[in-house]
Amino acid sequence: MISFKNDYSEGACPEVLEALVKTNYEQTVGYGEDEYCKEARNLIKENINYSNADIYFLVGGTQANTTVISHSLKPYEAVIACKTGHISIHETGAIEATGHKIIEVDGIDGKLTPNLILNELRKHEDHHMVKPKMVYISNTTEIGTVYTKSELESISKVCKENNLYLYLDGARLASALASEKCDVNLEDYPKYCDVFYIGGTKCGLLFGEAVVIINDEIKKEFQFSVKQKGGLFAKGRLLGIQFATLFKDDLYYKIGVHSNKMALKIKNAFAEKGIKLATDSYTNQIFCRFKSRTNKKIRKRCYFFS
Amino acid sequence: MISFKNDYSEGACPEVLEALVKTNYEQTVGYGEDEYCKEARNLIKENINYSNADIYFLVGGTQANTTVISHSLKPYEAVIACKTGHISIHETGAIEATGHKIIEVDGIDGKLTPNLILNELRKHEDHHMVKPKMVYISNTTEIGTVYTKSELESISKVCKENNLYLYLDGARLASALASEKCDVNLEDYPKYCDVFYIGGTKCGLLFGEAVVIINDEIKKEFQFSVKQKGGLFAKGRLLGIQFATLFKDDLYYKIGVHSNKMALKIKNAFAEKGIKLATDSYTNQIFCRFKSRTNKKIRKRCYFFS
Amino acid sequence: MISFKNDYSEGACPEVLEALVKTNYEQTVGYGEDEYCKEARNLIKENINYSNADIYFLVGGTQANTTVISHSLKPYEAVIACKTGHISIHETGAIEATGHKIIEVDGIDGKLTPNLILNELRKHEDHHMVKPKMVYISNTTEIGTVYTKSELESISKVCKENNLYLYLDGARLASALASEKCDVNLEDYPKYCDVFYIGGTKCGLLFGEAVVIINDEIKKEFQFSVKQKGGLFAKGRLLGIQFATLFKDDLYYKIGVHSNKMALKIKNAFAEKGIKLATDSYTNQIFCRFKSRTNKKIRKRCYFFS
Amino acid sequence: MISFKNDYSEGACPEVLEALVKTNYEQTVGYGEDEYCKEARNLIKENINYSNADIYFLVGGTQANTTVISHSLKPYEAVIACKTGHISIHETGAIEATGHKIIEVDGIDGKLTPNLILNELRKHEDHHMVKPKMVYISNTTEIGTVYTKSELESISKVCKENNLYLYLDGARLASALASEKCDVNLEDYPKYCDVFYIGGTKCGLLFGEAVVIINDEIKKEFQFSVKQKGGLFAKGRLLGIQFATLFKDDLYYKIGVHSNKMALKIKNAFAEKGIKLATDSYTNQIFCRFKSRTNKKIRKRCYFFS
Repeated sequence: MISFKNDYSEGACPEVLEALVKTNYEQTVGYGEDEYCKEARNLIKENINYSNADIYFLVGGTQANTTVISHSLKPYEAVIACKTGHISIHETGAIEATGHKIIEVDGIDGKLTPNLILNELRKHEDHHMVKPKMVYISNTTEIGTVYTKSELESISKVCKENNLYLYLDGARLASALASEKCDVNLEDYPKYCDVFYIGGTKCGLLFGEAVVIINDEIKKEFQFSVKQKGGLFAKGRLLGIQFATLFKDDLYYKIGVHSNKMALKIKNAFAEKGIKLATDSYTNQIFCRFKSRTNKKIRKRCYFFS
Repeated sequence: MISFKNDYSEGACPEVLEALVKTNYEQTVGYGEDEYCKEARNLIKENINYSNADIYFLVGGTQANTTVISHSLKPYEAVIACKTGHISIHETGAIEATGHKIIEVDGIDGKLTPNLILNELRKHEDHHMVKPKMVYISNTTEIGTVYTKSELESISKVCKENNLYLYLDGARLASALASEKCDVNLEDYPKYCDVFYIGGTKCGLLFGEAVVIINDEIKKEFQFSVKQKGGLFAKGRLLGIQFATLFKDDLYYKIGVHSNKMALKIKNAFAEKGIKLATDSYTNQIFCRFKSRTNKKIRKRCYFFS
Repeated sequence: MISFKNDYSEGACPEVLEALVKTNYEQTVGYGEDEYCKEARNLIKENINYSNADIYFLVGGTQANTTVISHSLKPYEAVIACKTGHISIHETGAIEATGHKIIEVDGIDGKLTPNLILNELRKHEDHHMVKPKMVYISNTTEIGTVYTKSELESISKVCKENNLYLYLDGARLASALASEKCDVNLEDYPKYCDVFYIGGTKCGLLFGEAVVIINDEIKKEFQFSVKQKGGLFAKGRLLGIQFATLFKDDLYYKIGVHSNKMALKIKNAFAEKGIKLATDSYTNQIFCRFKSRTNKKIRKRCYFFS
Repeated sequence: MISFKNDYSEGACPEVLEALVKTNYEQTVGYGEDEYCKEARNLIKENINYSNADIYFLVGGTQANTTVISHSLKPYEAVIACKTGHISIHETGAIEATGHKIIEVDGIDGKLTPNLILNELRKHEDHHMVKPKMVYISNTTEIGTVYTKSELESISKVCKENNLYLYLDGARLASALASEKCDVNLEDYPKYCDVFYIGGTKCGLLFGEAVVIINDEIKKEFQFSVKQKGGLFAKGRLLGIQFATLFKDDLYYKIGVHSNKMALKIKNAFAEKGIKLATDSYTNQIFCRFKSRTNKKIRKRCYFFS
């Protein structure tokens, strides 16, 4: 049986595994204060071309989102997100559990727009309502679409003008970067975002997400929130070793390209067979519509979500 | 200037004020354990024809909603409500601040229906999402409409079948009861709801809402949540005295009838002038559409929301 | 039976009741934006001799404490308090319910000292622990003692030097002011505190506490927290009317003096009979030790806590 | 330089690393629903001799504590713990951040006793205070001491009699089991505890803690809390592979014995040199008192905490 379920059904890519094996018996200090984490941070700073970022390595996406959002907002501040956003629907209310409302918006192709954001600002006019303070977007989105440079630019502009933080969930950022529809480079992100994370779990690591903080207000005392939300990893160097490997020799970009290429093969195969796509994805997530009979048939030969 | 802003711009109705004055120098125990609170609880039990209810007197609606919902739900459980629901939009994220997601639904005339509820149950299928456990409705709704008996019955049925608590916000329940469109009596509510509150602030009291708990699971240790959420009123007898007065001699119902009657006069005046209503209200909330010029003009002579 | 249970077993003092009656049928805007609230704020500003304060009227003490503390602190920040502090033991975990640790300290006579505070700062050294950010004291304390001017001064100094907010719970501030052991005036409090509240419930009001914010950081958007924590009172003018009455003609101070005088009579009676006090109170809270037999005997003739 | 800092300064023990390498390219389902997790669960159930347990694999200790405690308690319920307990002092208020008070007790040798617990139950008498509902203990304790069988038995008895959950933090349970002072076997724990966790991070794994739930009330819907608190690991099989390896061929016990043996060498060396211990540890944590001069001297040759 072949599994088309996701991009995290195996362990690590060979380079990452090898690095972990090679360093296994070295002794380092814990909690991300080791030399490997330092190296990984420096490599990421080079790759994003922004030396003044603060970088934290967390284990998973829900943890990253929870830590960033709860750290950034005051109790009555809220985050604007698409209804299809990961934080809106697929994190078991993790954000609300830290006390914050998600203002959920019907996105367009899984994406927010300046108008959708401004519309919410207009509605939230006084202290009888939450105060929108952050915008959450994902690239790639949860339905496989990507933001273009001009889309990110205009969202970023509206955020800056309205004193909103822009937070980008990059669980599958590598796939976005590699997409033919995406004219944004990794080094553009610090210009647009106040904070974003670069996903490792879905890009060849055993686990790990790198939170990149650009805005000084969010940087302040972030390590306290990391610890409180359960994200201060004892053997922190495991994250450093993996991310350092990922950002050497363009491995990060190569994995993104490879995964999109594989997805394109599937997409083309669908096209040939006349199978309709639910969204026209240019990344490594393909959603299509099968007839019920087809569904049953292929279910015997491979795994997929339905 | 005349104020059409709301139903809480004066103090108390004469009977309530008189009762407070009369009892002012009596000494009682605090925190709602006095004889007046006992009397008020008994009167409400008679009025709802349900002797096995637990009744708590709280100061305001946001407090009542927060206490009831946070007490009833486990951390990962959520409440389904209309987008126009008071908890959704007008309580500054008070529910989320206690850790719970509100699953917001586009209501029909400000109301939930069995299908809208079932639709959300279908979507929330596993532990990657919150677990819907409570349904929140308001009667009258926030836009002045009312639930009929058959509507309440069918929502209640769907709740019982799906192990959901039904919670009714009765901030303006008196107006609903007095509405010509409403065929529900006060004593029907214990049959349909697991918990509901009877609003006093908008029905002639200085302040006060009576939370009526029917479901034994919610009754358990509710007093701890009242205290924790800041609702254990030191001079609790003030609430007892007011509610005891309200539920003697049908005062509660009379106020409801009176306020609807006054609203109907306004509504009829609008009709005569050809002014369009935003919703066809049969209660004491009238929302209408003025032209911008009219708006300016009458603004000089009276207060209203816009 | 006579009740010695507390200072809130009756309704309001005559002046306050009269003011409520007199204004009952006036129409005002809601939520504390009326003229009475404005007047009350101005009177308090005059009395504390500090015109740049922000003043909010809340219904009860637990609500005031919860709102102030949760508004002031970031998620990982904590408040230092005596073990006997009201927030530590008598609010059903209300502060923790908003996410914040109370660092509980064995006080001296129910009071904190600079050394006790510094000791906690020393212990909390890095991000594996909460960050102390606020100091909570009560005057009178929960065991009837009072802070002297020099004590408050030295605590305030240590707070300013260490970037800690000083928050004073004044549920019984009138009794403290009237105490012969207390050389602090009301107008001293803005010098020492970042925020404090002036209790009305235990000083002749039906209910009400006035939160006085001195520090600009805490002032910011406080109205959002008030609403979210259930403290935005619909008929807000009731609080304004009461506090305006309390701060006219020195009523506030007179009540404090009267209540201490009454307590002193009790204290002296105990002394005459050789009954030992648990703490040497100079305020309106008297705690004494009865023999079990005496306890039983007087329990037949009056109410008290044991 | 040699590091004496902790028991987690290297990667994984050879057997665990090998297992991860060997399985790296296999495809499995995510989120702990794979065959390796199943195998690990079965092995643990055999080792604790309790087939009816629910077992969840989490990444770290703070996460395990937060998830278990917040899942088990209602908003007004509290957990009793030693002041030296990890949750009390070393988790940046993670428990309070989920809304719950920790009732902190001065332990005896870092341990709770039945009397210390009963004492707190006596103090918490009504709904003005939190309701103690859980007892948290660690074995080994945070200062290197261990609980004996009779101590655990008597604590468990007091918990059962008073309707309290007993939760044991086993971050270093392997070291406790291997201690000459400890007459408790792994299979005793299900008899005493409602829930406990078996630490892997400090016992040869790259990371991982196995939460073992005995009490059916706590089992219910635990997977929702795991996801919400950020603990649902995408590549869950990594945890399964590691724990399956740890509980094969007695590896878990061997590591415990080894680490205590190494610690004993250090302890004996101290004894020979006349260096005083802070607590008389029989586990792998040694705390001693150096003179300031010695401290400086050895700091040049090795790492340790001070």
